[in-house]
Amino acid sequence: MTESVVLNRPAHGFAALERNAPVVPFDFSRRALRDHDVALDVLFCGICHTDLHMIGPWGQEFPLVPGHEMVGRVTEVGPHVSGFAPGDLVAISVVVDSCGVCRPCQAHDETYCEAGATSAYDSIDRVDGTRTRGGYADTYVADERFVHRIPDGMDLAGAAPLLCAGITSFAPLRHWKVGPGQTVGVVGIGGLGHLGVKFARAMGVHVVAFTTSASKAQDALALGAHEVVLSSDAAAMAAQAFRFDFILDTVSATHEINPYLSALHYNGVLCAVGIPDALSPAPYLLASGRRSLASSGAGGTREIREMLEFCAEHGIVADVEVVGKSEINQALERLRNNDVRFRFVIDLSRD
Amino acid sequence: MTESVVLNRPAHGFAALERNAPVVPFDFSRRALRDHDVALDVLFCGICHTDLHMIGPWGQEFPLVPGHEMVGRVTEVGPHVSGFAPGDLVAISVVVDSCGVCRPCQAHDETYCEAGATSAYDSIDRVDGTRTRGGYADTYVADERFVHRIPDGMDLAGAAPLLCAGITSFAPLRHWKVGPGQTVGVVGIGGLGHLGVKFARAMGVHVVAFTTSASKAQDALALGAHEVVLSSDAAAMAAQAFRFDFILDTVSATHEINPYLSALHYNGVLCAVGIPDALSPAPYLLASGRRSLASSGAGGTREIREMLEFCAEHGIVADVEVVGKSEINQALERLRNNDVRFRFVIDLSRD
Repeated sequence: MTESVVLNRPAHGFAALERNAPVVPFDFSRRALRDHDVALDVLFCGICHTDLHMIGPWGQEFPLVPGHEMVGRVTEVGPHVSGFAPGDLVAISVVVDSCGVCRPCQAHDETYCEAGATSAYDSIDRVDGTRTRGGYADTYVADERFVHRIPDGMDLAGAAPLLCAGITSFAPLRHWKVGPGQTVGVVGIGGLGHLGVKFARAMGVHVVAFTTSASKAQDALALGAHEVVLSSDAAAMAAQAFRFDFILDTVSATHEINPYLSALHYNGVLCAVGIPDALSPAPYLLASGRRSLASSGAGGTREIREMLEFCAEHGIVADVEVVGKSEINQALERLRNNDVRFRFVIDLSRD
Repeated sequence: MTESVVLNRPAHGFAALERNAPVVPFDFSRRALRDHDVALDVLFCGICHTDLHMIGPWGQEFPLVPGHEMVGRVTEVGPHVSGFAPGDLVAISVVVDSCGVCRPCQAHDETYCEAGATSAYDSIDRVDGTRTRGGYADTYVADERFVHRIPDGMDLAGAAPLLCAGITSFAPLRHWKVGPGQTVGVVGIGGLGHLGVKFARAMGVHVVAFTTSASKAQDALALGAHEVVLSSDAAAMAAQAFRFDFILDTVSATHEINPYLSALHYNGVLCAVGIPDALSPAPYLLASGRRSLASSGAGGTREIREMLEFCAEHGIVADVEVVGKSEINQALERLRNNDVRFRFVIDLSRD
């Protein structure tokens, strides 16, 4: 269903011109508005760990413009857009299109589209076949189904990381029905984990943060954790047996998950959203507690809207370091070294 | 809480006198009845794959009397037994005692007792510290909490395997709420899997059996499967993508589970009850469909009673080969070679 390709909206962004290259200013064009499209000026765009992977081994086509945690202001809408008007503050997440007809799409869990969801960048547009380009840029265009209203009064820089780090932490907590009376663990206090702690606390559970870093223990308590366990302390880990209803593991490096499986109550679920290269659960630990090892991606449009309402109600945004456009490569390098508290966000108005 | 040990009830059974030895006639004594104890004559005892492991590498103490799928007739009850009387037909399963106070015990999921459940054999009795001895014997004694009434009219030989193979298949189907409108896979058509197919069919789902063995395809259809997929056929396996709400994997040999994870719908669960030595899920397959890899043990007393009622209602028992006491070693050897349709049961009245 390729229409004629009309790319006539000038865009000024930042791209890796080839794999593993630093990002540099890059001019390109975005599509002419379709009937249901919304155009926005990008105000803030978070820097996600995925961006490092995409500039590196995962990227399909270069030049590659990263960015899928966008907050912006609507500048123009297509003729059939009903939900947005110029001036509205909006957000764009990881997924910007999907088949619309499969079971997950019908449930507005478009992330799990069986035909493959269209990503905000380095993906093939379903209509015109062009390559999508992300939010490290002054503008973006998306179908209104994948545009989300920012609640009034929300800090815009802090809101940006909600669209990937946030929803990736929020969605599993909701899907597995985390709630009052439960004890929940959050493993890794980074971009995803620091929001996982805030969400879990706001959901009324007893929150235990697991970190390898003694220096993050105070951070975790300040974020809302009731307790912190140093995961390098074998005795402290052994003392966690049978404590947890749910553990959100945000660590992306390959790591030993069996101490966390042991820490689960019977019927407990460990959801490893960091997607390490391998997961090696001990079968007897799963069997002896009817435990589950799961993973999940960013939530779909239903869960994103629910999260934004939840964040507004509970006053939650990400803790961010805001950088200007000239500082993107430096921020990427610091992110590569896990040197960030807790998410970088590009201010597209700042050089 | 060790009471004085009184072992004064003569028992005649079959034991492996040392590791990896054949079983031979073995006389021993069972305990004097405690207040809540039920004594029974064992009529039939299933031969479980676990028995091979226990006679082999897993056994703790020899002589070892195997057997945890018992059907028998009550001969005597302790003074405070309220639910049973001599002459009642009853069953004993894998677990015969537990702490009674932890969360799973309170929920009558005693299999997952946090203090460690007491097994029907080769386990330490919680009261007198003696080693439990199993159902390859003419009698058994157990606390009435772990004794189950056999529904009227149920075939007794076919009922015996329900107490381990059956409940291990039934419990996860119930726990993960398998029901009408769903498509469910059963992997491996052996002792557990053949009952898994029967249960799933009776629960009103569309049942697909997976087997490596073309010779078992007709068996699976006869047991109630709507379809059979040969798991060695890569094209047939690839065609299963996104089909299944739940897959019960009963295979105990280490095997590739990722084709089954791919076959799950989003939010689907693969429960591997065969407890192979290792499970190696591809993290991206879990994440891309919010899928779960789980395992579980035999169900507790609540689920066993529910299963026995379900079996009575739907006319389900195991398909068994009944052997006499002199044929136990031959049956164990055939089981080792997966040569059984679908479960061996010892008739304790037959030589």
